[in-house]
Amino acid sequence: MKKDEAGHRGRGRALYEEIRARMADGTYGPGTALPSTRACAAERGLSRTTVSAVYEQLAAEGFIDTRPGAPSRVAAAAAAPSPAVAMPGAGGPPPDQAPPGARLSSVGERMSALDLRPDAAAVPGAIDFLYGPLAGRDFPTLPWLKALRRVERQRPARLAYDDPRGAAELRQALQAHLSRTRGLSCDVEQLVIVNGSQQALDLCARLLLDAGDTVVVENPGYRMAHHVFEATGARLCGIGIDHHGLRTELLAGVPRAQLAYVTPTHQFPLGAFMTLGRRRELLDWAASSGAWIIEDDYDSEYRYAVRPEATLQSLDGQGRVIHVGTFSKTLSAQLRLGYMVLPRHLVATFAAAKRLADRHVATGTQRALALLLEDGSYDRHVRRIRRLQQARRSALLEALDRHLGPRVAVQGAASGLHLVAWIPGLPREREAELAEAAGRQQVQVYPISRFYLPHAGTCTAARPAGLVMGYALLEPAQIDQGVRRLAAALDTLG
Amino acid sequence: MKKDEAGHRGRGRALYEEIRARMADGTYGPGTALPSTRACAAERGLSRTTVSAVYEQLAAEGFIDTRPGAPSRVAAAAAAPSPAVAMPGAGGPPPDQAPPGARLSSVGERMSALDLRPDAAAVPGAIDFLYGPLAGRDFPTLPWLKALRRVERQRPARLAYDDPRGAAELRQALQAHLSRTRGLSCDVEQLVIVNGSQQALDLCARLLLDAGDTVVVENPGYRMAHHVFEATGARLCGIGIDHHGLRTELLAGVPRAQLAYVTPTHQFPLGAFMTLGRRRELLDWAASSGAWIIEDDYDSEYRYAVRPEATLQSLDGQGRVIHVGTFSKTLSAQLRLGYMVLPRHLVATFAAAKRLADRHVATGTQRALALLLEDGSYDRHVRRIRRLQQARRSALLEALDRHLGPRVAVQGAASGLHLVAWIPGLPREREAELAEAAGRQQVQVYPISRFYLPHAGTCTAARPAGLVMGYALLEPAQIDQGVRRLAAALDTLG
Repeated sequence: MKKDEAGHRGRGRALYEEIRARMADGTYGPGTALPSTRACAAERGLSRTTVSAVYEQLAAEGFIDTRPGAPSRVAAAAAAPSPAVAMPGAGGPPPDQAPPGARLSSVGERMSALDLRPDAAAVPGAIDFLYGPLAGRDFPTLPWLKALRRVERQRPARLAYDDPRGAAELRQALQAHLSRTRGLSCDVEQLVIVNGSQQALDLCARLLLDAGDTVVVENPGYRMAHHVFEATGARLCGIGIDHHGLRTELLAGVPRAQLAYVTPTHQFPLGAFMTLGRRRELLDWAASSGAWIIEDDYDSEYRYAVRPEATLQSLDGQGRVIHVGTFSKTLSAQLRLGYMVLPRHLVATFAAAKRLADRHVATGTQRALALLLEDGSYDRHVRRIRRLQQARRSALLEALDRHLGPRVAVQGAASGLHLVAWIPGLPREREAELAEAAGRQQVQVYPISRFYLPHAGTCTAARPAGLVMGYALLEPAQIDQGVRRLAAALDTLG
Repeated sequence: MKKDEAGHRGRGRALYEEIRARMADGTYGPGTALPSTRACAAERGLSRTTVSAVYEQLAAEGFIDTRPGAPSRVAAAAAAPSPAVAMPGAGGPPPDQAPPGARLSSVGERMSALDLRPDAAAVPGAIDFLYGPLAGRDFPTLPWLKALRRVERQRPARLAYDDPRGAAELRQALQAHLSRTRGLSCDVEQLVIVNGSQQALDLCARLLLDAGDTVVVENPGYRMAHHVFEATGARLCGIGIDHHGLRTELLAGVPRAQLAYVTPTHQFPLGAFMTLGRRRELLDWAASSGAWIIEDDYDSEYRYAVRPEATLQSLDGQGRVIHVGTFSKTLSAQLRLGYMVLPRHLVATFAAAKRLADRHVATGTQRALALLLEDGSYDRHVRRIRRLQQARRSALLEALDRHLGPRVAVQGAASGLHLVAWIPGLPREREAELAEAAGRQQVQVYPISRFYLPHAGTCTAARPAGLVMGYALLEPAQIDQGVRRLAAALDTLG
């Protein structure tokens, strides 16, 4: 039966293609009568059903005209390419040419114009102090596979679209997890699962920003957030950072802003923890400015002394703070899993936006993560990877002290997966030169300049060269060797 | 070593929480001197290192002020809640109240105002002719699990962000697949993997539409696409449908449009295949209007006679057509996997937008699908599920004929996973009544009205009641019983 069907379809297909080919080469010109289905079937040893199906298909596609009792004829349109339209296989237009009269939207124009840097590629043999990715070997492959297997074997009866806010199991497990580990109290209803924190930022930008709005951002800061805001046509207002986080005393000089984007738990990239007083000042300013606040809590798992306390969200009595978190820094950025904790009055709007954007995050991935959270494997994994990162961090601090000593000043090493190494003896204009010299010594380092706004207002204070040094990809021995190479590179700069 | 570390952290944690609690209950008011680290350590049997770490954390968070040689004191800000800011645990604002002065963007306002219907939930015991979801039992669980296992065991060394257009393996495999099964020729460079076709539509809307632009859509049509366009502030212009697809002769009356959204292979929901002549007319119109075209090829796998031919994309000589496809109709909508075939000149802009939106689709899912495409399991699965759907389709056609006979007129049954059953004897105003009567007979059916634009211009032609009947969730015996129940429901309407 299966074979018969396939054979039937195969023979019909051959007939279909032959007729199309004859039309293309001109044998069957417009108006040409095709043989009757009976004649065609007899001639080719096919059933009339097969031939009729092929003729119906050709008719449905407009290649032939059929009328009961009359022969089928090749349609006029079938052989007459219109001037503006090339035939298949005629070759497309040149790669970089837009069609006449076509234009992008203003968002499209702005996105095209953004200077998005490609992410750094691995250099074989080099020791890489890249911040961002985790090491593949640190991923909890066995628990994850076990969870995936369980999920795949409990597939629901109908593969329908889920709640745009995410799978109920995951939101339930996450709510308990955030309460327990982060002191963050919210209802399950306030949680929205997203494709990594990048999607959270993008949804905020779309739902909260119009062209011309002002957004307060940290400077230096997370540039991919800045770019998302810029794409809406909003204007960035960079505020400088000191050892207590965002310099809130500078907010008084900001024009009425619509949004502030901050990393209060671990300022990216400088590493400061925003003090309680400054948090209150930020919230007061937001209340007076009518602004929303995004709290990006991207790596709070890596506090090496005590656990982090007092999210901005927990201090917010007005429903202005959108708390954003991610699993990219504990599991993998390639999983694309993050979450938002929304003020209640924003939930319905963000759910609609997520549904329109892409319906919801892939269900299987969400349910597998829920299992890891529920059975304790996630907590165990976090404890394990935190110890690993802490050992790498210690190795980096020791190596910097050993090989560079007073030539570096370390900032922001108390938590996270990176630190900032300032080189007081090197002017910041020579950062790129240092990175190149390091590259020649087979060590990859990353200038801090790329995290500053290009046209900064409030933070052009003198600073030396600085490097953002991530350690999550390296083992202690590599870290020591890498810093030794960096010291050698610095020597070559004279 | 591990236990010591945990114990150390645990004891430090207890001290930290005790001090915070005393601040909260007023025991430690602003200015109160804390015991020295030495005294505190002795009193509690802790190491001075532990106590110092706790004090440093409290200082970093702004709860205490520390100076070398002087006692640490509770900070002024720590106990003074500012007027606008509630203390943690003080309870948030009422659920539906936005903070004073806060506003959404115009996109946010429009998304809030959209009338998005929730997807239909399953009714226990009812036979459900829902169109959209596939049945969980039809999913190729074993090949998929095998592919996931292989992928999870070949994790890359660094879990970095991938190409925003998608994993190279998947785009390579998909390019070959589309060429072989769909006659669609493109370079790997033109392919962008997205979170289901919904994301493709959303990216198109953002990059191609400004507020006030005109978008040509099919009426009736796919409302979730319409909503995405409306969210940008664009105006929909609905064009009617007949048995040859979009009525292109009506395009002449359309004001200059920026975009047309069509389902030419299988018009949703009426099922027409757009004839070649009409395709050319659409392309000619787009050339003269300067419009882009989205070709949504959402279920081309389910052509039951011969395979579909001649995508609009293959006829497009100007680079105006964006071809969109999905794996929701062959694997699962819950996987969130779809793709776009872009004109070359649009690739960089869409890649930037995808990167800003959510970086890229989850890598593991992409690589697993690539394996299914490469080793032939996907093709085998599609052949199998096509046979299953074809049997369900035949069962539905037979049941409609058997139980309703001349009381129904079937449209659009040649392909896809649904058909339209018109009820010539019932006015369309009574569709909802019919669906309710069917519900009472334990059968779920869906009025076609919901697919029409609410304020239609060109397609208010008289039509009777109609139902969109999907068959992918049902087995032939259920289908027969469901139609019998539907006939009984129709009888009750009199």
